[in-house]
Amino acid sequence: MSEPDPPGTLYLQIADAIAAPIRAGTLAHGERIPSVRELARRHGVALGTVVQAYRLLEDSRLIEARPRSGYFVAAPAAQQAGLPEPEASRPPASSLAVDVSSLAERVMCLAHEPGYVSFGAACPSPELFSQERVRRAVARAALRQRAALTEYTIGPGDESLRRAIARHALSLGCQLDPHDLVVTNSCLESIALCLRAVTQPGDVVALESPTLFSFLVILESLHLRALEIPTHPRTGLSVDALQQAFDKQPVKAVLSVPTLSNPIGATMPQTERRSLAQLVAERRVPLIEDVLCNDLAAHDEARRAVRAYDPTGHVMLCGSFSKTVAPGLRLGWVDAGRWSTPVARLKQATSGSQSAVLEHALADLLTQPGAEASRRRLRAALATRVDEARSLIARHYPAGTRVTNPAGGLILWVELPRGVDALALFQSCLEEGIVIAPGTMFSATDHFRHCIRLGLGGEWDEPHRAALKRVGTLATAMGQSPS
Amino acid sequence: MSEPDPPGTLYLQIADAIAAPIRAGTLAHGERIPSVRELARRHGVALGTVVQAYRLLEDSRLIEARPRSGYFVAAPAAQQAGLPEPEASRPPASSLAVDVSSLAERVMCLAHEPGYVSFGAACPSPELFSQERVRRAVARAALRQRAALTEYTIGPGDESLRRAIARHALSLGCQLDPHDLVVTNSCLESIALCLRAVTQPGDVVALESPTLFSFLVILESLHLRALEIPTHPRTGLSVDALQQAFDKQPVKAVLSVPTLSNPIGATMPQTERRSLAQLVAERRVPLIEDVLCNDLAAHDEARRAVRAYDPTGHVMLCGSFSKTVAPGLRLGWVDAGRWSTPVARLKQATSGSQSAVLEHALADLLTQPGAEASRRRLRAALATRVDEARSLIARHYPAGTRVTNPAGGLILWVELPRGVDALALFQSCLEEGIVIAPGTMFSATDHFRHCIRLGLGGEWDEPHRAALKRVGTLATAMGQSPS
Repeated sequence: MSEPDPPGTLYLQIADAIAAPIRAGTLAHGERIPSVRELARRHGVALGTVVQAYRLLEDSRLIEARPRSGYFVAAPAAQQAGLPEPEASRPPASSLAVDVSSLAERVMCLAHEPGYVSFGAACPSPELFSQERVRRAVARAALRQRAALTEYTIGPGDESLRRAIARHALSLGCQLDPHDLVVTNSCLESIALCLRAVTQPGDVVALESPTLFSFLVILESLHLRALEIPTHPRTGLSVDALQQAFDKQPVKAVLSVPTLSNPIGATMPQTERRSLAQLVAERRVPLIEDVLCNDLAAHDEARRAVRAYDPTGHVMLCGSFSKTVAPGLRLGWVDAGRWSTPVARLKQATSGSQSAVLEHALADLLTQPGAEASRRRLRAALATRVDEARSLIARHYPAGTRVTNPAGGLILWVELPRGVDALALFQSCLEEGIVIAPGTMFSATDHFRHCIRLGLGGEWDEPHRAALKRVGTLATAMGQSPS
Repeated sequence: MSEPDPPGTLYLQIADAIAAPIRAGTLAHGERIPSVRELARRHGVALGTVVQAYRLLEDSRLIEARPRSGYFVAAPAAQQAGLPEPEASRPPASSLAVDVSSLAERVMCLAHEPGYVSFGAACPSPELFSQERVRRAVARAALRQRAALTEYTIGPGDESLRRAIARHALSLGCQLDPHDLVVTNSCLESIALCLRAVTQPGDVVALESPTLFSFLVILESLHLRALEIPTHPRTGLSVDALQQAFDKQPVKAVLSVPTLSNPIGATMPQTERRSLAQLVAERRVPLIEDVLCNDLAAHDEARRAVRAYDPTGHVMLCGSFSKTVAPGLRLGWVDAGRWSTPVARLKQATSGSQSAVLEHALADLLTQPGAEASRRRLRAALATRVDEARSLIARHYPAGTRVTNPAGGLILWVELPRGVDALALFQSCLEEGIVIAPGTMFSATDHFRHCIRLGLGGEWDEPHRAALKRVGTLATAMGQSPS
C-alpha cells in the first residue's frame, strides 16, 4: 500500500511483524522471540512501544511470557491455528463526510424480515430473554402505576429507574448520581443527544474504524464529519493514534465502544482505558462512551468503563438494557458528566420523557433477584454459538480468511481474502435467503470491501449452521473467479 | 406606539376600529354598522380587506349579519360584555434568536409539582381520562404481544397503530397512507424531526405570536431563528402577514397550530386554512402543522386540518393523543408529506422505534367503541371549567383585562392592563402557592409582559376557584402600585 502509515500505529506494525511468521508456522510453539530491549534496538523505537506490541500479542494469545525467561511462541491451541485475527485498521488521517444510510437501512430491514436466515442483526433473539418475566413486570407496573398512564410526565425519568441504573453502573466501576441520569428512548438516542450537546454541524468526531453503521448514520443526520481512528480487533481504539489526531485536527468529540465494539468486537485493555480517560480530560474533549454491550463481556474486568477512570466529567456514558433485559422496552440512559444539564434539556425539548410505566417495569426487572443469573445464562449461550461459528468458519471459509475472537458478545468480524467483494457476496447470499452485513456499512472509507459482520444472536439451528457454511462456500467461489 | 405596523394586519386594524366603540358601549346592540362598500371607501382599502375584518368581528360575536339588511351590533350575551378579547399580536418583522428555556423549564417543573395550585400546565389532569381502560389496554397488549417485549423493533411503528391513526385522521379531513406515518415519542418529537428534516442551523422559521414556549425551546436547541407572525386570538396566524414575510425573508419552514393554538387558543377559519395550504404549496415552503388539540375543538369543522386542503404534500402533519387518550403512553405521530422518508430516517437514526406494546395498547384504545364518547365527555368537562373561569376573571380581574374566548380546549390567555408585570405577578402568585405561566414564556419578543396563560386542565375545586380569584386580586394591586 502506498498510503503513509497513520499515526500511533508503530506498535501495531511491530506486532504484525512478529505475528506474521508465527501465523505462517515459521516460528513454532515454544520458540523464543527477541527480548523487548533487543527488538527496540533492532527497530530503533522506544522500549514502551515494544512493550505495547508484546502486550497485544499476549492478548492475542500468539505469544506467552515465561517468568524470568522471556517471551515464547504460544501453543497452537491458544493461537487457534488456522483462524488468524484481522489486523489493525488503517483509516485515512482526514475526516470524511458520511453516507452509508441507504445500504445500512436495507440490510437492517432484511435482517429482521421473516423468511431469511439472518446474520444481519446484532441483537439476541427473543427466546434468549425471559419473555414471561418481562411481560409480568409490565403488567404489574401498569397496575401499580396506573396513574402514571394518565399523567403528563416531564423530567429526566422515574427515580426508581434512575436509582436502579446507578446501582447497575457499579458493575461498570462507576459511581453515578441518579440525579445526573436521563432516561431516553435508546442508547442511540443517548448518543445522538450527547453529540448534539457538544458539537455543531461540520464538526469532526473521532471514532473507531470500522465502527457501528448506526453511528455513521447519526453523524450523517447531524451533518458531522467522521474521523476514523486506527483500531485493533482485540484492543480497540488506538489511544496513541487518537492523541496524534488531536494534535492535527480540531476533534470536537470522541465516540467509542471500549467493550465489545461493533463490528469488530474489540475490548480495550484497562491500561488503555486509563490513558484514554486522561487524554480526553487533558484535551477537554468529550468522550461519548457506549457501554451497551459491557454486560455481555466474558470477564468482569472488561465491563469496567472508561468513565471509571475519569473524575473530571469529560466522559459521557450511554447505555441501555436492550441486549440483556428486553429490547422491546425501548429505554436507554445517559449520564453526560459535565454536560448533564444541556443533555437533559435537549431531551425534554425535542422528545420529552419516556413512559413511566415501562420505566417502572425496567426498574423492577433490574432489581429482581436472578437478574445477574439470567445475564450469565445469556453470555454462556452466546459464547457457545460464537465458538461453534468460529470452527465452522475455520473449516468452510476460503484460505486466507481472518476472523475476530471477541471476549464475549454475539458478533464475528470476518476478513475475507481481498479478491472477495463483500457487497457482491451480500447479494449472492440474499439470493439464497441469507442475510449478512457487508463491511462497507461500517466505515465512511472503502477499506472493508472484503469484510463481513456475522451476527449470531438470532436462532441457532441446523439451517443456520448450513447457511453459515454456505456463506463460506460462496465466498470461496468468488475468490476463485476472475474479478 | 411608534413601531410601524407589521404587514398583513390592515384588516385587523379595521376590525379593531369597529370593535372599540362596541366594546366601550358607544355602539349598542342592534345598531347598524357601515356596509362593506362604504367602509372600504372610507378607509381607502379593497372590499376584500373589509370582508375579512367583518368575518373576524362575526367570529368574535361582536357583530351579526342580517340577511338582506346588512351588519348590526350583536347582542351583549354573545359579546360577553365586560370580557373583551385581546387584540391581534404585532411582533417585529425581523427574526430573533431564541432564549426562553430557563423560565419555561422552571414554570413547567413548578406546574407539575405537588403542593401548588397549578394553572401552569396545559394538559388535562389524570381524573379526566379513563385510567382503568388505559391500564387494561396496556396489560392486554403486554399479554397478547408479549413477544414484542423481547424483540428488537425497527421501522416506523406498529402497523395496527399506524392504521388506527390513519383512520382517526379522517376526522381531521385527511386521507393518510399508513405507510407514510411514523410513530414518535411525542408530538414535540414529531415537530423536532420535521424541523431537522427541512432546516439547517441559522434558518428562519415562521410561527404564531405568541407561540407555545416548547416551540421556542425546540428552535433554540436546533439553532433556528424565530420569525413571529401577527396572530389574532380568534382567527390565528395571519396568512396575509405570512405571505408578506415570505416576500421579504428566506423563511425555510412555517410551524403553526391552526386549531386551538397555544397560548391564545385561536382557531383559524376554514377559508384561511385553504389560503395557507395554497400559499405554502406555491412557495414550496414546508408547513409543520400541529394537530395535537384538534380533538378538543368544540365543533367538527374546526377539527379539519390545513393538510386537508393540501394535495401537494407540503404540509407535515404532527399529532399525538396525549390530550385525549392518555398522556403517559408517550406516543406521537407524524405524516411528513413529501418529507416522509427523511423524517422516518432521522427518527430511526437518532432515536429508534417506540415500544410495540404501548403502540398496540394505543391502537386498541383508539379503535375501541366509546372512544368518541369519552372525547365528547372530556370536551364538555373542559368547556364548563373554561366558562366558569371566564366569569371569575370578569368579576375579579383588574379593569381593562382582556381574555380569550377559545372554541374549545383548556387554556385562557389573559391580557392584563399594561401596568401589570406578569413576571412579578408570577412571583407573587408563587409565594402564595399558585402557579401561572407568564406571557414572556411565549415569545422571543418582550411584547407579552402583561399577559398570562391559565391552564384549566388540572383539578377544579373550591381552592382552585379561590386561587384563580386571588391571581386577579394580586394583579389589581400591582396595576395600582406605582411601577
